[in-house]
Amino acid sequence: MPTPWQQRFAQNAKSTQSSAIRELFKVTANPEVISFGGGLPAPEVFPIAEFQAACDKVLSTDGAKALQYSNSEGYAPLREMIARQMDAFGMKLTVDNVLITTGTQQSIDLITKMLINNAERILVEDPTFLGALQVFSVFGARYVAVPIDDDGLKTEMLPEAFRVGPRFMYVIPTFQNPGGVTMSRKRREELIELSDRYGIPILEDDPYSALRFEGETLPPLISLDAKRLKTADGYPAGNVIYCGSFSKTLAPGLRLAWISAPPEVIAKLVQIKQGADLHTPIFVQMAAYECLRDGFLERHILKIRDVYRERRNVMLAAMDEHFPKGMEWTKPSGGLFLWAKLPEGMVSAELLRTAIKMNVAFVPGNSFFSVDDKAGERYFRLNFSNMKPERIQEGIKRLGGAIREAMKK
Amino acid sequence: MPTPWQQRFAQNAKSTQSSAIRELFKVTANPEVISFGGGLPAPEVFPIAEFQAACDKVLSTDGAKALQYSNSEGYAPLREMIARQMDAFGMKLTVDNVLITTGTQQSIDLITKMLINNAERILVEDPTFLGALQVFSVFGARYVAVPIDDDGLKTEMLPEAFRVGPRFMYVIPTFQNPGGVTMSRKRREELIELSDRYGIPILEDDPYSALRFEGETLPPLISLDAKRLKTADGYPAGNVIYCGSFSKTLAPGLRLAWISAPPEVIAKLVQIKQGADLHTPIFVQMAAYECLRDGFLERHILKIRDVYRERRNVMLAAMDEHFPKGMEWTKPSGGLFLWAKLPEGMVSAELLRTAIKMNVAFVPGNSFFSVDDKAGERYFRLNFSNMKPERIQEGIKRLGGAIREAMKK
Repeated sequence: MPTPWQQRFAQNAKSTQSSAIRELFKVTANPEVISFGGGLPAPEVFPIAEFQAACDKVLSTDGAKALQYSNSEGYAPLREMIARQMDAFGMKLTVDNVLITTGTQQSIDLITKMLINNAERILVEDPTFLGALQVFSVFGARYVAVPIDDDGLKTEMLPEAFRVGPRFMYVIPTFQNPGGVTMSRKRREELIELSDRYGIPILEDDPYSALRFEGETLPPLISLDAKRLKTADGYPAGNVIYCGSFSKTLAPGLRLAWISAPPEVIAKLVQIKQGADLHTPIFVQMAAYECLRDGFLERHILKIRDVYRERRNVMLAAMDEHFPKGMEWTKPSGGLFLWAKLPEGMVSAELLRTAIKMNVAFVPGNSFFSVDDKAGERYFRLNFSNMKPERIQEGIKRLGGAIREAMKK
Repeated sequence: MPTPWQQRFAQNAKSTQSSAIRELFKVTANPEVISFGGGLPAPEVFPIAEFQAACDKVLSTDGAKALQYSNSEGYAPLREMIARQMDAFGMKLTVDNVLITTGTQQSIDLITKMLINNAERILVEDPTFLGALQVFSVFGARYVAVPIDDDGLKTEMLPEAFRVGPRFMYVIPTFQNPGGVTMSRKRREELIELSDRYGIPILEDDPYSALRFEGETLPPLISLDAKRLKTADGYPAGNVIYCGSFSKTLAPGLRLAWISAPPEVIAKLVQIKQGADLHTPIFVQMAAYECLRDGFLERHILKIRDVYRERRNVMLAAMDEHFPKGMEWTKPSGGLFLWAKLPEGMVSAELLRTAIKMNVAFVPGNSFFSVDDKAGERYFRLNFSNMKPERIQEGIKRLGGAIREAMKK
């Protein structure tokens, strides 16, 4: 007989689909498997000693504060540091524009809670970040999906997509996940202009932009928006809610991220944050601030860039060598991912079964498509940050073998 | 002209009321103010040195794991430790019955997300924990409120309250917040029996039960429920979802708590947790486990009990001395709070204004009532854990003065 809970869940219409990536993690726990599946940073770049020194200092000098309840907005010196980081883009942020969160996953959750009522629509890039789709579906959202190309979101398709009335747009403009592409400056300007004209807010998810290996830094959407619409004090007052993260620049295991937005948006999000987890662990906030202050973050990012640039180069070279003709893939100038397309007639989810037998893994493309997952069946995502260069070479060689094997069928 | 966001929020019907406690925190930031307002542990009992040693050990021996992404369920050794803690009550929990969360505030958020659709009802104790009401109202829930007395929730009123169809009951059986009362064993048995008969789940919030100063330990609801309904393996399979916390036994600034429930409930909550913040900071989980293992937690709790017992005694003695005739208050045998009632005709929210001028603060009772906040206007909550004994004596003296002052009006 089913338990009361099994009966209850059988009746429950709420969609809480398990993430394909999470299931994949279980397979790839086997150390024999070379996994290009997750979005994990290289453990070799974690500043363990520096963070340990920071923890010691915080607990030695301010332990009672680090272990006590704190405010929902977050640790003021950390918020101030984040505001100053964004000075480079000509904005005048203050602590009132910054909310500390327990990772970008939470940032997306809080913003969705603020903006969406059941069954309303969200405009997303096609493909887009799986973790965002997972939050959105917990809230019962539906989707409007707009394709990306090498210049990012195809902005010329937005006016038509707006007709179905999305409540907001979820966009990863720089080193998109999973696409690896970056939205051009022209498209950024167009997106902001359209967002303002139609009154549709943008959730700008920007976890990777610090990890640029080459080429010109592009301004985040929030800074372009702030130029169009700002208060007398120079605060941004526009349509963009910006999500930044320390997961890729310091360490993901700390779950530390932030939201930058106009003060009235932050005030609303603080109330929702208070209900969600009261505050992000203050000890972690204080230790991270202690670790990152005085320019350490800037120096450390240079090191991460060097490591990831090499790994990307190794992966691209190995793909050129081992992948069969008829395949295409992106050449990202930063971030963690590239996005590959199989020859016609092949299906990446089927390839994965063959690949896992050969001890190599990736994420099939269909997981990243919100509306029509068949649109992703020829695609797959490869992560190049987590594995060392030798493992990348070996893994791509195995994957090339798996593709040739699957082509025979 | 209002910004687009101000216009948007003006149209937004979602209730995200700011917490009265949070506003109170701001007033009480003034060090002159003796605050009995928050629910803050005594900083004097934080095991700073032990936690610092634990952080050092974790980062020295397992730093890359502590800083990397981790699984949504939580750190397995910590989950196992929690399962063994609950052995005392005759349950056979395993790691599959335990989910680590970022504080009980998050536990309540995840469970509410799982069980409630917009505008459905939740049965709550009257009065109850403000932070829970805040989560519930973010989800648009409505309430059925059932009073408490010295033996806790008045179970004889449940069958009638069930007629309006609550989706679940939110109950704090031990050292209730704000009431300070503990549900009797008889009422616990009745509650479980009614929950099973009517098929209405219970969210058992149990942050304080380790802080018992005297008297017999009562079994948590989950253990009584597990005796009625369990799987062949001895797992609880019943109607209770239990929320435990390290905020009052280790430190609240770490935001570390857990949910114990049947495995199918945990599996569902893991999916929702993944969407909410992916996982609780793994570094914090590992450091807390390192700090608490090998019996430290049990020894440390004895110390906290001694400190809080003394503070409760000091507060009760000072109230006897300084409060006017015609007042009543609870004499809790554990926890952090007591609950006082003003003489007829007085209003605690008005008293607070007078009290703050005299540099003493508390939380007015109306904040804790979900349906009819006028029911709480003669009540107020006093916290006895945070202030040292001398400050408690001085604060109660000032408050007694404020009450006499207000009585004159």
